[in-house]
Amino acid sequence: MSIDVQKIDRALNPSTVAVVGDKKVTGYMWLRNMSTFTGPVYSVQIDPSDIPGIEEMGIPNYSSLTEIPGDVDYVLVAVPRRVAPFVLKDAIDKGVGGVGMFTSGFAETGSDEGVELQERVTQMALDAGLVLLGPNCMGLFNAELGVRFGQDQVAGEGGPVVFLSQSGGHGGAFSVAAQSSGVKLNKVVSFGNGVVLENADWLEYFAQDEATEFIAMYVESVRDGRRFFRLLKEACQIKPVVIWKGGQTAEGKRATSSHTGAIAESMDTWDVVIRQAGAIRADSMTETVDILKALTTFAPFTGDGIGLTGGSGGQSVSMSDAFSKAGLRVPMLTQASFDRLEEFFQVIGASYLNPVDMGGMNRPMMESIVDILSGDANVDVVVMQLSPRELQRSAERGAAHVAALTRAREETGKPVAAVLFSPDPYGDGEALKELDLQLQAAGIPSYPSYERAAFSIRKVADYYRRREALQ
Amino acid sequence: MSIDVQKIDRALNPSTVAVVGDKKVTGYMWLRNMSTFTGPVYSVQIDPSDIPGIEEMGIPNYSSLTEIPGDVDYVLVAVPRRVAPFVLKDAIDKGVGGVGMFTSGFAETGSDEGVELQERVTQMALDAGLVLLGPNCMGLFNAELGVRFGQDQVAGEGGPVVFLSQSGGHGGAFSVAAQSSGVKLNKVVSFGNGVVLENADWLEYFAQDEATEFIAMYVESVRDGRRFFRLLKEACQIKPVVIWKGGQTAEGKRATSSHTGAIAESMDTWDVVIRQAGAIRADSMTETVDILKALTTFAPFTGDGIGLTGGSGGQSVSMSDAFSKAGLRVPMLTQASFDRLEEFFQVIGASYLNPVDMGGMNRPMMESIVDILSGDANVDVVVMQLSPRELQRSAERGAAHVAALTRAREETGKPVAAVLFSPDPYGDGEALKELDLQLQAAGIPSYPSYERAAFSIRKVADYYRRREALQ
Repeated sequence: MSIDVQKIDRALNPSTVAVVGDKKVTGYMWLRNMSTFTGPVYSVQIDPSDIPGIEEMGIPNYSSLTEIPGDVDYVLVAVPRRVAPFVLKDAIDKGVGGVGMFTSGFAETGSDEGVELQERVTQMALDAGLVLLGPNCMGLFNAELGVRFGQDQVAGEGGPVVFLSQSGGHGGAFSVAAQSSGVKLNKVVSFGNGVVLENADWLEYFAQDEATEFIAMYVESVRDGRRFFRLLKEACQIKPVVIWKGGQTAEGKRATSSHTGAIAESMDTWDVVIRQAGAIRADSMTETVDILKALTTFAPFTGDGIGLTGGSGGQSVSMSDAFSKAGLRVPMLTQASFDRLEEFFQVIGASYLNPVDMGGMNRPMMESIVDILSGDANVDVVVMQLSPRELQRSAERGAAHVAALTRAREETGKPVAAVLFSPDPYGDGEALKELDLQLQAAGIPSYPSYERAAFSIRKVADYYRRREALQ
Repeated sequence: MSIDVQKIDRALNPSTVAVVGDKKVTGYMWLRNMSTFTGPVYSVQIDPSDIPGIEEMGIPNYSSLTEIPGDVDYVLVAVPRRVAPFVLKDAIDKGVGGVGMFTSGFAETGSDEGVELQERVTQMALDAGLVLLGPNCMGLFNAELGVRFGQDQVAGEGGPVVFLSQSGGHGGAFSVAAQSSGVKLNKVVSFGNGVVLENADWLEYFAQDEATEFIAMYVESVRDGRRFFRLLKEACQIKPVVIWKGGQTAEGKRATSSHTGAIAESMDTWDVVIRQAGAIRADSMTETVDILKALTTFAPFTGDGIGLTGGSGGQSVSMSDAFSKAGLRVPMLTQASFDRLEEFFQVIGASYLNPVDMGGMNRPMMESIVDILSGDANVDVVVMQLSPRELQRSAERGAAHVAALTRAREETGKPVAAVLFSPDPYGDGEALKELDLQLQAAGIPSYPSYERAAFSIRKVADYYRRREALQ
C-alpha cells in the first residue's frame, strides 16, 4: 500500500470535515449529508449565487481550503472536473487528512480530456501521499461519526461491518439495505475509479483494522490480480470477507467499462480466486446483505442439518425443497424428539417429520415444538416460518414467537433464523417491519423466502467448514 | 374424466351454497368465508352450542342437508372424519352440485382408519357421480361469485387465471399473492387428496373452459402419469399452463407423502414432461405468480433483446449481469438511437450503451430515453428500474414514469416491465404498493429485483418461442 495506515485512519475517522463546491441546484446535498457529523463542518464555495444558502444553514464558508482555520481531516470535493486539480492542490497545501472526490468525468468516459485529467489528479495525490477516494465516487460513510454520503444513511451508531464499493450507488443502497436489516455498519467506502487506493489497498487496510470484524466488497475489477489474491487470502485468515463481483457476464463487463473504466477478468477466474482465498461469494446486493445477516448473528457452526417448522402441509413441502436444493439436509428427528412430540402432537392434518408441520391445531404448542426441534441432536440450525399478517393481530403472540426462538438459541447455542412469509409483502410492509425489528433486537436474522434463508445459511456453513478445514 | 363437464360447471359456479359443520371455536370461519357469496348461504349444524352464533349471523341453519329448501349447488363440509360419510350420503340424497371436503384425517395420515374412511368416501362419490373436491382441502374459490375459502381472498371481480392446487395453504396464499400482484383470478380449486377429481381431471376440465385463459397448478403427484402427460399436452395447445411441482427433492417428497399421501415421481421425469408438453415450469409460489404477471400482460413475443434503463452506474452493471445470466440478450442500441441520444445525453457519470444509465443528470430526459429505447430495432422488451422511495416525493413524477412506460408499450406493442428497486422493502412498503397499483392499472408487471424480472421474461419468451416452433 502506497499510503500509510495512520494517514488513512485520520481521513476515515475525521474530527473536522469540509465540502468544496456544494451547490444550490442540488439542494446542497453534500452539506446536508454532513449535517449528522459530530464535529465542525466547513464549506468552500466561490460562486456568489451558492453562498447565501450555505450561510443560511449556519455553515462557515471560505473561498479556499487553505483559508479554513485549523486542521481539516476529510474533504469532499464536488467541483467540475477541470477545477478538480486546483482544489486538490489546495488540499495538499493545507495538509488535509484525505479527499473524497465526487467529481466525475475522468477515465470512465473514455475521452482524452477525462483520461488526461485523471492522470494529473492521480500523480498529484501520489506525489503528496494523499489519501484520495475516487474520483467518480461518493467517498466515505462513517456511521458512528455521521460522515455520510446519502441522506438515507443512519448516523450515530457504529458496527462491525465495512463495505468497500467501486459503485457509489451500490454503496448508498447497501447502507440502507444493511442498516434496515439490522446489519450494523462501521464504514462504507465508495472509491469509484480508485486511482490511488483501490480494492487491494482498502482490503489490506481493513484487514488490519481492529474495529472491522466483517468485510464486504462490491468489486468491478482489480489493478493487480496477484496482489489482490494474496491480500484477500491474508484478510480471510483474519476475518470473513464477502465478495460481490459486478460484471460477471459479457454484458455486465461492457457496463463496468463505461462505469469505472474497468477491464474485467472472467468470472471463472474470480470464482477460483474467491474460493481459494476462503472468501464468500455473493452475486447481488441482496445476497451480500442476506449473507451478512447470518454471518453477523450466528455463532460459528459447521453442521448442515436444518430443523424446520412453522408452515402447514404445502409449505412444509416447499421448505423441504428449498433447503434441500440449497445443499442442506432436512434430517429426520431423533426417536427422543418423536416421543416428546407424540405426547401432544395432533397428527391429523399435520406431520411430525421434519419439517414439524404447524397446521393450525398444533400452533398453540409452538413453544414446545421449538424447544424439541432446537434440542434435537440431528438439528444444527433452526428455521421457523412466521406469518407477520397473522402475528400482527396479536402483539403478544408475535412476542411469544420471538421469545421462543431467542430461548432456543440461548439454550442450545445453535443458529436460529426466521422466514417471514407474506403473500403480499408490499401490503404487509408495516407488519413485516414490526416483526423484523423485534427479531433484529433479538439478534435473529429473518428472510422473506425459504430460498433466501437456505442460501444464506448454506453460505455461512460453507465458510465455517472451509475455515475449519484450513486450520 | 369420470364426471361430466356440466356437473362440474354447476358445482364451481353455484347459485346456492351450504356449509356443514361450521363451529364457534373456529370463529365460524367457513360461513365468514362465504359472506361475500352473491347467492343464499345455508348452514347445517346440530351442535346446540354452535347454532346460536350461526343464527346471530342471520344464516338459516338446518339439521341436515336434505332439509334445506330448494337446490344446493356447492357444499363445504367441515365435520369430523367419522361423520363425513353420513354427510356425504345426505349430499348425494339431496342431489347437490358438488362438495368441497375440508375434513382431513384420511389416507394422508397413513392410519388404517384414515385409509378405510377415504375408500368409503371415494366409493360413495364415484357411485353417485358426485363432484367431490378433496378431502383434506380448502375447496373452491370463485372470485366473481364470492365463494371463498379464506378471508384474505378478494371477491367481486373475475379474471382469466385458474389455479389448481393439491395444497390448500398454497391455494390460499396464491390467491392473495396473485390478487395483490394484479393477476386476476377466475377460480382457485384446492382438491387435497383428490380422490374423485385429481390433477389430470381438473386440467382436462379447465382446458376446455372458455372463461379460463391461463392455468397454473401446484402438483405433488398424479395418479396416472401417461394420462396426465397427454392431457397436459392437449391443454398447452389451447392455453398456457404453468406447473409448480412440489416435492422436487428427497426431503420434499417425504413431506408430500405425509401431506397428501402422494407417491412422487422424480423431478427429472417431471422436467421432461413439462418441457415436452409445452408447459411452463415454476419452482415456487413466487415464481408462479411472477410468470403469470408477465404472461397475462405481455402480448406474445419471441425476441430476447432487452432494453434496460433507470439505474445509475453500478445498477446498470447489476441489471446487465442479471438479464444476461437469465439467458437474455442486452444488445447494443442502433446507430439511429445513439444519434438521438447524443443530442441531449450527458455522458459524464453515465453511459449510453444499453442499459441507458439514468444517472441523476439524465433523469429529466426520462420520457425521451424510454421513447428511444422502446423504439430501437434491437430491443424486444423494455425494462425500467423505478425507485418508489424517490418517486414517492412527487406523485407527478411517479405518474409520468408510468405514463412513459404505458406509451412505449402502446406505440411499439413491445412488452414493458418495471423493476421496483428498494433497499428497504419493508420500510418502503407503502410507496411500493402505491406505485405497483399504478403500474397494475396500466397493465405493466413489476418485479422487486432484476433477477425476478429477468427470470419471468425469459420464461414467457421461451414459452412463445416453443409455441411458434410447434406451429
